[in-house]
Amino acid sequence: MSTKIFPTAQDAQIAFYEALERCDLEAMMAVWSEDEDIVCVHPAGQRLAGQAQVREVWRQMFAGGTNMRVRITQQVVIAGVMVEAHSVHENITVAGEQRPRPPMVATNVYLRTAAGWRMIVHHASPAPGQPAAEPPSPAAPKILH
Amino acid sequence: MSTKIFPTAQDAQIAFYEALERCDLEAMMAVWSEDEDIVCVHPAGQRLAGQAQVREVWRQMFAGGTNMRVRITQQVVIAGVMVEAHSVHENITVAGEQRPRPPMVATNVYLRTAAGWRMIVHHASPAPGQPAAEPPSPAAPKILH
Repeated sequence: MSTKIFPTAQDAQIAFYEALERCDLEAMMAVWSEDEDIVCVHPAGQRLAGQAQVREVWRQMFAGGTNMRVRITQQVVIAGVMVEAHSVHENITVAGEQRPRPPMVATNVYLRTAAGWRMIVHHASPAPGQPAAEPPSPAAPKILH
Repeated sequence: MSTKIFPTAQDAQIAFYEALERCDLEAMMAVWSEDEDIVCVHPAGQRLAGQAQVREVWRQMFAGGTNMRVRITQQVVIAGVMVEAHSVHENITVAGEQRPRPPMVATNVYLRTAAGWRMIVHHASPAPGQPAAEPPSPAAPKILH
């Protein structure tokens, strides 16, 4: 049983992405609420609900042991007294790959519990290319040959 | 300015999907919190934050006036006193199309405000094929010619 206490939702979020980078299942599950009321949606994955489903899919993902780094950008925080929703872009680079992967957009919802802030929802899905990365150039001449 | 009051988060959700089906922009925005702290992620769309961005993209979507029906299934509700997170599958059928579209998985977060329950987050993304809808048949012979 985990006794980790996160004093803020942001602390829980930092621990979430550290556990993801380290493929550390126990550290990952210590971020989540201990209630059955948790939901996790991985990119293009089935919706997972409850401790058993959420834990099992993290276990499968971590068994592969991918060596990845996640850089969080464009965070928007909707903060209440007991709940915070964080909307972020996850910029993932995998060791050995030449290019960073396309960013994911994630909704992370945290609840203030008796045991500190815990995650109750993680929903991640592919984000389209960012304007800064792919500047549109409608005025550029089209080269057809 | 909207004066619509939703006594429960579920009432707000019903109004959300009715507005979506009717392509009714004012009814849609009446479901959302009036604060700037709102986030909307359409399937494969950029993350939208704040009233102006969220409203403008609904306006563009509704301008097309697609005649669609949304059936909500597999709802999981994480309920707090002031906030509820609803995880649902959206089963969308568009008039004139032979088959239902692949389901979406959506995370909808509602806040209890002075003006009743309002949406603060909508994040929808494609859900993979459900086992019941697409039974795997690894033992079936592969027809190559």
